[in-house]
Amino acid sequence: MDVVTINFIDEKPKLNNPIFIEGLPGIGNVGKLAVEHLIEVTKAKKFAELYSKDFPPQVFINPDGTVKLVNNEFYYRKATNKNQPDLILLTGDYQGLSSQGQYELVQSILNVVIELGVKRMYTLGGYGLGHDIKEPKVLFATTHKNLVKPMKEYGAIFRKNEPGGGIIGASGLLLGLGKLQGLEGVCFMGETPGYLVDPNSAKAVLKILMKITKIKVDLSRLEDKAKEIEYIAQQLSEMEGMGKERGDEIQYIG
Amino acid sequence: MDVVTINFIDEKPKLNNPIFIEGLPGIGNVGKLAVEHLIEVTKAKKFAELYSKDFPPQVFINPDGTVKLVNNEFYYRKATNKNQPDLILLTGDYQGLSSQGQYELVQSILNVVIELGVKRMYTLGGYGLGHDIKEPKVLFATTHKNLVKPMKEYGAIFRKNEPGGGIIGASGLLLGLGKLQGLEGVCFMGETPGYLVDPNSAKAVLKILMKITKIKVDLSRLEDKAKEIEYIAQQLSEMEGMGKERGDEIQYIG
Amino acid sequence: MDVVTINFIDEKPKLNNPIFIEGLPGIGNVGKLAVEHLIEVTKAKKFAELYSKDFPPQVFINPDGTVKLVNNEFYYRKATNKNQPDLILLTGDYQGLSSQGQYELVQSILNVVIELGVKRMYTLGGYGLGHDIKEPKVLFATTHKNLVKPMKEYGAIFRKNEPGGGIIGASGLLLGLGKLQGLEGVCFMGETPGYLVDPNSAKAVLKILMKITKIKVDLSRLEDKAKEIEYIAQQLSEMEGMGKERGDEIQYIG
Amino acid sequence: MDVVTINFIDEKPKLNNPIFIEGLPGIGNVGKLAVEHLIEVTKAKKFAELYSKDFPPQVFINPDGTVKLVNNEFYYRKATNKNQPDLILLTGDYQGLSSQGQYELVQSILNVVIELGVKRMYTLGGYGLGHDIKEPKVLFATTHKNLVKPMKEYGAIFRKNEPGGGIIGASGLLLGLGKLQGLEGVCFMGETPGYLVDPNSAKAVLKILMKITKIKVDLSRLEDKAKEIEYIAQQLSEMEGMGKERGDEIQYIG
Repeated sequence: MDVVTINFIDEKPKLNNPIFIEGLPGIGNVGKLAVEHLIEVTKAKKFAELYSKDFPPQVFINPDGTVKLVNNEFYYRKATNKNQPDLILLTGDYQGLSSQGQYELVQSILNVVIELGVKRMYTLGGYGLGHDIKEPKVLFATTHKNLVKPMKEYGAIFRKNEPGGGIIGASGLLLGLGKLQGLEGVCFMGETPGYLVDPNSAKAVLKILMKITKIKVDLSRLEDKAKEIEYIAQQLSEMEGMGKERGDEIQYIG
Repeated sequence: MDVVTINFIDEKPKLNNPIFIEGLPGIGNVGKLAVEHLIEVTKAKKFAELYSKDFPPQVFINPDGTVKLVNNEFYYRKATNKNQPDLILLTGDYQGLSSQGQYELVQSILNVVIELGVKRMYTLGGYGLGHDIKEPKVLFATTHKNLVKPMKEYGAIFRKNEPGGGIIGASGLLLGLGKLQGLEGVCFMGETPGYLVDPNSAKAVLKILMKITKIKVDLSRLEDKAKEIEYIAQQLSEMEGMGKERGDEIQYIG
Repeated sequence: MDVVTINFIDEKPKLNNPIFIEGLPGIGNVGKLAVEHLIEVTKAKKFAELYSKDFPPQVFINPDGTVKLVNNEFYYRKATNKNQPDLILLTGDYQGLSSQGQYELVQSILNVVIELGVKRMYTLGGYGLGHDIKEPKVLFATTHKNLVKPMKEYGAIFRKNEPGGGIIGASGLLLGLGKLQGLEGVCFMGETPGYLVDPNSAKAVLKILMKITKIKVDLSRLEDKAKEIEYIAQQLSEMEGMGKERGDEIQYIG
Repeated sequence: MDVVTINFIDEKPKLNNPIFIEGLPGIGNVGKLAVEHLIEVTKAKKFAELYSKDFPPQVFINPDGTVKLVNNEFYYRKATNKNQPDLILLTGDYQGLSSQGQYELVQSILNVVIELGVKRMYTLGGYGLGHDIKEPKVLFATTHKNLVKPMKEYGAIFRKNEPGGGIIGASGLLLGLGKLQGLEGVCFMGETPGYLVDPNSAKAVLKILMKITKIKVDLSRLEDKAKEIEYIAQQLSEMEGMGKERGDEIQYIG
């Protein structure tokens, strides 16, 4: 049993100069939310499932009572006009648990997309600020210097020494290992408080991807989710506030 | 030395369309208690021992002064009438220590039972509630949707989003990996407080298995164990109570 | 690079029905102290060094300024009369760090001693009591039931359910894995407080080994070490006592 | 994917009896600072990059917006006169994360340098004192006894039982594994408080290396860095001091 097993559902898709977009769980689940939304609205088709010994030994239970072994999943979406590229999309339940497993997983993912003709990839993640943010910006880092200027023109920003610790996990490693194998790539990191899943930050990331891919994506469902989360966040903060008030009262009584 | 070593005691048993039942240590030891009881009362015969580098480096000491390397053990039980299926039973001292080891172990177990003709399996575990429960229900999840209705008819229940975190460990992984290899399976999870080993929950699980397998199992010894545990639990709770009372007294004195 | 590398210093020793004695670091360092003493007083000769990736990445610095990569070492000692057996002795700086590594290491050790003709082994360790003990007894456990009676006659004792958790580490695993490969073995566990290295407990273990092997071992140096440790323990306990007294004084002053 | 991958940039350098100098991250970053300085001032040329699954799954972000997968790097520097040796230099972002990985990495490094003709190596590290030190001494340990006297003559010192725990990590393991493969080596450990990176200790180490290699190295930039760090350390200590004063004031007020 290998560390990574990839099961293709039918035959491998035939794609025209596809670009690869990754969004796995991470800070604020920004990347995962963005890619899941993209899959949903573009009606992308699943073509492969990736299983790994480096994921937890866990099944999820579907609403119909059946189980699903935790995995990552590959989708593709064919261009609907000449300006758009074909897309390969990756999302999933987990990143690898161990450092070595992360390397194995990322290399396995690269093997799949390179075989399908990918030369350019975008990896999506969150940049945790630890404080609230009204209008999340999207930071980026890239494999090749000539990609810096166009990314700025798409509205992504670059701040020297941010994130200070570099990029940890699949989004960074895909760029790092991919570059060694001749791929170009950009990592987009949506600013996020990082406390809760952040559809608002995912939206900011998708807006930039829309410009790059010329694919128009309806963001309304993501906006709905953002409102739900905002509501939950508010309630959590009110509960804390009430706790403080009650605490004050007790202090007065005492 | 492989991660998993399986030693067959004699030759492999010849079984007629056997079903596989797993019960390894876990929450409330529900699965292990159930399968151990089944082995005992049906006089199932051990046919293989599974050793693994992913178990602790440990021997237990038998009452006669000899040592036993920690392991998992396979048993079989032949049908005594035409309505019953042949059984393969698995129990043991430990599940794998590491995530990767769990995958290796479960795949090794699947290899054994697939070779012996298994197409259907039942994995047994506990569902920890964190509070006392009078009449434990048995929840289930399954590999295939068509198994949902019959399991409900056997008295198992399905509650949406329970367990919320899915199933972690061998009971879930056997279903997850088994499904990918064409096996059908159901995981039964007996409700349990989860504080102590729970023969009562194991009994509830076995009652359902009895209906499925048409094997009549004397549950009296399991009921005796349940009474012992109940007695211990009561004593523990009284000791806590006494502690509180004494604490109150001290407060009165103070 | 394998998990375990064994370097034979010259050619492999030719031994006559040798017995194998293991004493690696553990509770009270009882086993290591006993085997090191045995090596010293019987002038046993080193014939192999075992290195492993599962040891820490560490060198010790010898008194002459040179470094020594942490390892385990094999020694042999030829019988000096017909009543004695030839001995293979193992001691070292560490046991394996990981569970899987322990299995690899123990199997590698077994491969060496089986090739050299070993059919019987004695593994030595400590049994931590957590309290002081005047006359440490030596508990045992064994691979084969027929060894129980002779071991009792040699003065070792067996108490049901002790140690409750079985034997963890190389001393247990050598018996567990060895038994599967046809070896006989006994683990001797000297009772020890377990706080400090315990030459006194090592002495108790060696006394039994002397009866078994008919090798007379001068224990005086071990007794000197025991006195040193006793002195250190007393000083530590006095320091604690002084601390308490000073604490009392301060309380009086306060 | 192997644990270690080494990419040679062009062809392998042809070197004349080269000596190997290692300085990876560690206590006070003494070794890394020393080798980085040596690379900079001697204009050593990078000839290979080492990537490993045992490093974190991480990319750093360069000031120009591009990413760099964490790695170790090999450099060489050819002698400019007959008294100097050719040098192979190694530095990098990380040591291995796991114990087993450290062994793999060090063996891979040894394979490279042995193939390039290395017979002697110097590994550089810090010796953490836990207190400030004006004039850091340089301790050493070595693979071969005949190296002790010359190292003392170069100004390095040897104190029995220091460091008490031996040498942990690549600097020690290179000596330990290298010795088993016929290499000579010395580990130099610059005394350092160990709180911050310590260019001053790196300077002390380089002074000894200059005597050994007859390579004159301009240490001024390292001295500048040392002043910067000294300034930061002073500010940190003043901030603590101010905190204390303010604390006193508050106590007076209270």
